[in-house]
Amino acid sequence: MTLSALEVNRLKHAPAVEGVLPVIHERWSARAFDDRDVSAAELKKVFEAARWAASSNNEQPWRFVVGRRGSETHAKIFETLMGFNRGWAGSAPLLIVGAAHTQFALNGKPNSYALYDLGAASSYLTLQAAALGMTTHQMGGFDHEAARLALEIPADYALGTVIALGYQGEPATLSTEQLIEREVAPRARKALGELMYGAWGEAAELG
Amino acid sequence: MTLSALEVNRLKHAPAVEGVLPVIHERWSARAFDDRDVSAAELKKVFEAARWAASSNNEQPWRFVVGRRGSETHAKIFETLMGFNRGWAGSAPLLIVGAAHTQFALNGKPNSYALYDLGAASSYLTLQAAALGMTTHQMGGFDHEAARLALEIPADYALGTVIALGYQGEPATLSTEQLIEREVAPRARKALGELMYGAWGEAAELG
Repeated sequence: MTLSALEVNRLKHAPAVEGVLPVIHERWSARAFDDRDVSAAELKKVFEAARWAASSNNEQPWRFVVGRRGSETHAKIFETLMGFNRGWAGSAPLLIVGAAHTQFALNGKPNSYALYDLGAASSYLTLQAAALGMTTHQMGGFDHEAARLALEIPADYALGTVIALGYQGEPATLSTEQLIEREVAPRARKALGELMYGAWGEAAELG
Repeated sequence: MTLSALEVNRLKHAPAVEGVLPVIHERWSARAFDDRDVSAAELKKVFEAARWAASSNNEQPWRFVVGRRGSETHAKIFETLMGFNRGWAGSAPLLIVGAAHTQFALNGKPNSYALYDLGAASSYLTLQAAALGMTTHQMGGFDHEAARLALEIPADYALGTVIALGYQGEPATLSTEQLIEREVAPRARKALGELMYGAWGEAAELG
C-alpha cells in the first residue's frame, strides 16, 4: 500500500516558519494528476499571478502556450516530452510551454534577463496554482527544438519549461514503482547558510 | 508636493482579483528606502522563501551574497552599480547579488536552467519581503565583471541581479525629479491575452 494523495500532500509540506507565506512551504511538484479539469476562471487566476512578476525594464518577456487535454496543442507538447516525463505528464489536464523574448521590444537589443524573468513569472504561476489547491510540475526534459517547430515559436524566443498543471491525483495511479517512490519521497533543500553568503563561500552572519 | 510613501504604496497595488494571492498584487519595486534596518530574523524569513523554490533536478543553483549597509560587501556591490542606480540604491539597508551555478554539482554537466531557477528563487524572495512589509528592487544595471571580481564569484556561476532590500521610504527623499517621477508612476502590465496563447501569437480561448 502506498500513501494516499492527502497523506503525501501532508508529507510534502515543508515545516511552517512564522511570518513566511504558508503557500511557499505548501507548494510541491506532483506527478500524479486527478481527472478533474481546471476551469477557465481558475486558469485565469494562475496567469494573473504570472502577469505581475517583475522583469528587466518591465519588458514582460514571458509568453505561455497553453494546451488543454484533448486539444492539438496539448498533444503537440506531450509529443516533445522525454522518456521519463512521458510516463506521467500526459494525464495533466494542462500542459504549458513557457517562452521568453530574448530581444527588447523597444529597440531589438539582446535581453540577457529573458530566461531569468521567465523563471520568475513561472514561479509566481506555480505558487498561485498551489494557493488555489492545484499542483504544477515544471519539466526541463523535453525536446526544445521539436517544441519550437511544433508550436511555431520564433527563433528570438528562448524556451523555458513545460509546466504540467492540474489537481493532485492518487500516487497509486502512477504507472511505475519508480514514479510512485518519487511521488512519496520527502522534499529536501540546502540549509540557509549554503545559499546566503556574507562573502563568497562563507555563510552570512545573521547576529 | 509629491505623494507620500503611503499614498504611493496604495497607487502601486494592482487591482485585487478574488482568489489571487494578495501579495502578488501588492509587491512593487521601490527606489526610496527608509533608514530602518532589517532584523536578522526578518532577513532569514526572506531567504527561507527563496530556499523552497523549485529547480531543475532540485539542484538549487542559487547563491546570494548579502551586503549589509556599512559592510565591505555592501560597499563593493554599490561600486558596481551603473549610473542611474547609483543615484538611489546606496540607501538600501541591504544590497544582495544573486548568482547561479551553471554546472550540476553531481556530474559537472551544464545546467541550462541555472538563471531560470535563480529568477524563480529571487522572485520568491521578493514576494516574501513584500509579505513582511518590506520592498525590493532588482537591478540588471551593474557591471557584472566588476562584481564577479570584487566578490570573488567563480567563473562557473552566472550572475543574476543586484537586489536592493529594505523598508519603503518617502519618495521626496529621492535625489532627482526623474527618480521621484518614476517612484510615483502607476504600474502597468500587458493584458492576459498577450501572454497566454492557445497557439503561438493567438490569445487562448478561455470559454
